[in-house]
Amino acid sequence: MADPWQECMDYAVALARKAGEIIHGALKGEVSVMTKSSPVDLVTETDQKVENFIISLIKEKYPSHRFPFVAVSIGFVVNKKIEFGIVYSCIEDKMYTARKGKGAFCNGQKLQVSGQEDITKSLLVTELGSNRDPETVKIILANMERLLSIPIHGIRAVGTAAVNMCLVATGGADAYYEMGIHCWDMAGAGIIITEAGGVLLDVSGGPFDLMSRRIIAASSRAIGERIAKVLQVIPLKRDDATN
Amino acid sequence: MADPWQECMDYAVALARKAGEIIHGALKGEVSVMTKSSPVDLVTETDQKVENFIISLIKEKYPSHRFPFVAVSIGFVVNKKIEFGIVYSCIEDKMYTARKGKGAFCNGQKLQVSGQEDITKSLLVTELGSNRDPETVKIILANMERLLSIPIHGIRAVGTAAVNMCLVATGGADAYYEMGIHCWDMAGAGIIITEAGGVLLDVSGGPFDLMSRRIIAASSRAIGERIAKVLQVIPLKRDDATN
Repeated sequence: MADPWQECMDYAVALARKAGEIIHGALKGEVSVMTKSSPVDLVTETDQKVENFIISLIKEKYPSHRFPFVAVSIGFVVNKKIEFGIVYSCIEDKMYTARKGKGAFCNGQKLQVSGQEDITKSLLVTELGSNRDPETVKIILANMERLLSIPIHGIRAVGTAAVNMCLVATGGADAYYEMGIHCWDMAGAGIIITEAGGVLLDVSGGPFDLMSRRIIAASSRAIGERIAKVLQVIPLKRDDATN
Repeated sequence: MADPWQECMDYAVALARKAGEIIHGALKGEVSVMTKSSPVDLVTETDQKVENFIISLIKEKYPSHRFPFVAVSIGFVVNKKIEFGIVYSCIEDKMYTARKGKGAFCNGQKLQVSGQEDITKSLLVTELGSNRDPETVKIILANMERLLSIPIHGIRAVGTAAVNMCLVATGGADAYYEMGIHCWDMAGAGIIITEAGGVLLDVSGGPFDLMSRRIIAASSRAIGERIAKVLQVIPLKRDDATN
């Protein structure tokens, strides 16, 4: 049987590149910033242009136009299984791609997670999130405190879930965790992680659920489970909730 | 009078580039990691090679060889004034330079801070630091909590003080603050900040002191002073302490 998704994936790669060009172009010129729901959640003209451009595939959000990590993320899911994923970090000009069973790549180079199993040597990536509810902020920071006390090597935050996950896929970081993101933040990079030899877990340590709005993406099961052990869970409305 | 420091600065640029090449080369091959004082503070063969290479100018530390931000930082200080500064982010291949009164540049392009004055629209950069003393970690996270509650737009952490500061100089972030770093972390990027139109402040809101191990580097005085207002200070031994 011919590969059923190849044409679709090629199209998505072209789409991601085109969206990257739009962002690149806008970053060179003036960008008028409108505040959407809060100061945390900026929306730019560029976002809207790009959103219109790829709206037929996914509803993608760009959390910031200012920091050097702006990514286009596309995940193609059939029967709840991710078939392929693309993350284009357009300022860095890094095109991450993965196909189920075919490996993960960055600009054509094969990716492999670090395989780190020792939590005390691990570099984690996560985000402080965009929710400014005091209770949520407290849990996020308390989770960081518990992880730092293990101790771990360190924590970084580049501002984009998809790029954080791709950094784990490259071996640059050993694990990523976050609560409060959405399926469209995780679907593209999720398969990039697993095809690079990493594992996806729920923050409870159980199986990963794309609609749960929470994830641990780790270079080894040992590290992922160790992180799950200390994380306090933030209550969240699922992406597939009916109301 | 001829420019007294030009030759010295040219030499430092060449030095930074050469050190970057050593790091680049090592990143392509196997790197054996030895643990120095703690899992937080890694030292690699590459670090030692590079350290030996530039030891005549400064004692520079590379906090991690794994994440895509590894920088060479050189600050040239005469009578407690920074004459020029160089930060080479070698994986990104970005050479930041600044000369007193002559502006700041990245790969030859002139830099300008964002000028943002509204704290609620500001993107901050800082680090969780390498100190795992529970009291210190608590203060670092409590400071983040107070800033997030203002609210601010967000916080990022790329892992390198010098790169964080250069991101402020480019306008990519609006302010950087940290306590616990050293004069060699700040001297290179300090003048890059001021020559890009930014301000350096102490975390108390008073004048910046290169030996104090603490800094706010902001795109405007308003933002810098607003940050100073909420920061709880961490007690630190100064870099020029005699014992």
